[in-house]
Amino acid sequence: GNGVLSEYGTTIFSIMSRLAVEHGAINLGQGFPEGLEPPDVIAAAARAVEAGPHQYPPSLGIPALRQAVAAHEKRFYGLEVDPEGEVMVTSGATEALAACLLGLIEPGDEVVLIEPLYDSYLPMVRRAGGIPRLVRLEAPDWALPRQALAEAFSDKTKLLLLNNPTNPCAKVYSAEELDFIAALLEAHDAYAVCDEVYEHLVFDGLPHIPLITRPGMRRRCLKIGSAGKIFSITNWKVGFITAAPLLLGAVARAHQFLTFTTPIGLQAGVAYGLGKEDGYYQGLVADMQARRDRLAGGLDQLGLTPLVCPGTYFLTADISARANGMEDDDFCRHLTTQAGVAAVPVSPFYAARPPRHLARFCFAKTDAALDGALNRLADHF
Amino acid sequence: GNGVLSEYGTTIFSIMSRLAVEHGAINLGQGFPEGLEPPDVIAAAARAVEAGPHQYPPSLGIPALRQAVAAHEKRFYGLEVDPEGEVMVTSGATEALAACLLGLIEPGDEVVLIEPLYDSYLPMVRRAGGIPRLVRLEAPDWALPRQALAEAFSDKTKLLLLNNPTNPCAKVYSAEELDFIAALLEAHDAYAVCDEVYEHLVFDGLPHIPLITRPGMRRRCLKIGSAGKIFSITNWKVGFITAAPLLLGAVARAHQFLTFTTPIGLQAGVAYGLGKEDGYYQGLVADMQARRDRLAGGLDQLGLTPLVCPGTYFLTADISARANGMEDDDFCRHLTTQAGVAAVPVSPFYAARPPRHLARFCFAKTDAALDGALNRLADHF
Ligand SMILES: CSCCC(=O)C(=O)O
Ligand SMILES: CSCCC(=O)C(=O)O
Repeated sequence: GNGVLSEYGTTIFSIMSRLAVEHGAINLGQGFPEGLEPPDVIAAAARAVEAGPHQYPPSLGIPALRQAVAAHEKRFYGLEVDPEGEVMVTSGATEALAACLLGLIEPGDEVVLIEPLYDSYLPMVRRAGGIPRLVRLEAPDWALPRQALAEAFSDKTKLLLLNNPTNPCAKVYSAEELDFIAALLEAHDAYAVCDEVYEHLVFDGLPHIPLITRPGMRRRCLKIGSAGKIFSITNWKVGFITAAPLLLGAVARAHQFLTFTTPIGLQAGVAYGLGKEDGYYQGLVADMQARRDRLAGGLDQLGLTPLVCPGTYFLTADISARANGMEDDDFCRHLTTQAGVAAVPVSPFYAARPPRHLARFCFAKTDAALDGALNRLADHF
Repeated sequence: GNGVLSEYGTTIFSIMSRLAVEHGAINLGQGFPEGLEPPDVIAAAARAVEAGPHQYPPSLGIPALRQAVAAHEKRFYGLEVDPEGEVMVTSGATEALAACLLGLIEPGDEVVLIEPLYDSYLPMVRRAGGIPRLVRLEAPDWALPRQALAEAFSDKTKLLLLNNPTNPCAKVYSAEELDFIAALLEAHDAYAVCDEVYEHLVFDGLPHIPLITRPGMRRRCLKIGSAGKIFSITNWKVGFITAAPLLLGAVARAHQFLTFTTPIGLQAGVAYGLGKEDGYYQGLVADMQARRDRLAGGLDQLGLTPLVCPGTYFLTADISARANGMEDDDFCRHLTTQAGVAAVPVSPFYAARPPRHLARFCFAKTDAALDGALNRLADHF
């Protein structure tokens, strides 16, 4: 007998994007960028798709991309990694995360997670048999609750899942916070899966500091990157993992049974793109920072008070003054269907007792889209 | 503390392909085709990569490809499926399989598997918490052991994993065999995950019969297809699943956390390709059948006796007369390093007590590669 079919929920991003399409809403919900795709990177990929080769590349990724990832880690973080045994290409950062969790967690292992959290984290940790231990960041300052975090670790802790910069709350971890975390990992002989897909989206001159670069962390961390976020091309689904050989090997064995490998032409396009001059990366930050400021200023004037936002694609705004008592999910549905602007509620990023007064707005959009959304909101209120 | 890192093995295909590269061997090991990529399909994909759009498509796949898959199922099997709720695009058939297993199996569910089996099946069933119940096909005729199969089902059976046509033994299931299986699924209220990636590689005028087309099976089966195998382009990693809405929904929720979606340009290329005229599909079968005959004739003359091969890319040969007492894995290593021809041992396709006298040769290669391999083997023996 087959019993109940197992139940993951449907991701909030798909739900809100579908609603946005149905209602002709400007989509500031799902996190994808607009108008920033570098044409030379796209052309490089299109040429490589045409040219071939056309059969399976190695499961770890094409050598050119593994080398480009290693060079990227060296250029931006001074991190020396061996492209042969310490870099793996994945079919997007989502697959990288699945491979890490399914490759490392054994049933009964404890996994420390920090809320608010991306909506694949909990279901995948549970699917791998892990026991979640949750710690909460709270608005408006999202400070790391050091004591609660220390208490969440035990001798059963297999790993910490860390999202830095953090979606949806835009927290960028400081060196001191990372060193506090590093000490816990050492003390409990635990690993860290570091989802750093927004590594090149840190603003105001702040640095992005990968946990793997802190003392002692080289052999404990898996750093996940995303070509979709670096090149503003979210459909390609090319991600990468940097980690010490022992860790990467365990994850590579899971990867071979999840997707086995990733399309060659898109890998080649990303290999080309990662080699772009520093000016490209600086331009991305400057452009996104300007978009952030444009949206933050507009929301503030409308009484949707933006919280500080040092990174990611996302502004979180306090909706209390405008929600008329609605909870965040009702308010976001209302905005989408009535004002024609889609945002994402923050409550689904918490497992329980979520805040109900926060909505997430994606600012990685064209000026026309941002201004259009602000105008629609102004008309609505 | 982190304890032991979980252990999947490294897939035999990667191991043998690496050994083949190291020793300059002609690779008849890993299953990928040569020299058959349709240029128009490649050009369609390259154009679509260039043209965009560049952001996330729907998690279920682009509408054009879902419609093309539905039309394909209708054209070849008379199967009516709704492109909206009964078709999902995946990042290759490997991901389709992972999504089915992680989406449907709950810890403690029993899963019926038929040996010889593809090497991701057992690790993924176990990773999902399933309890494997194994039934064996035996050389040389690979007959379905009906009584053993019936005994493998119980009231805890969640699903059967069926590979038809079967890699590596090239079994093509008959209507009678499928109806026997269908009756077991009905009796035990179980599902079937049908890996039919070789659906267009069935020879000698035999039909491929999807289990989902047998009476009562529409609501019990998930049919997995592979663009890589239909268009001889294994690097693209585009697969698809056809299933009733309830089943597909459970699998879609797993899929969103495995890869979320699949590159648009490659989906567009496959959507174009699936619409190709019947002559394309007939030409693929004719070409592969000729290659099979070329390799079978040559191996037979060399004393590597090929078993019957009505489908797939693979000939299984009895190596007893040539192996000098070596077991299949030693013999395949020996052939790769000493004769310069890579083949894959069949023993890794069994969980225990494998046959040791069989090697798998991939014939989806150019005539030059097949003849070159046969010449090298002739020189060696
Ligand atoms: C995979 S769809 C979600 C995109 C995203 O990262 C987000 O909106 O948070
Ligand atoms: C994913 S690599 C394996 C290719 C294949 O299907 C095989 O060789 O059996």
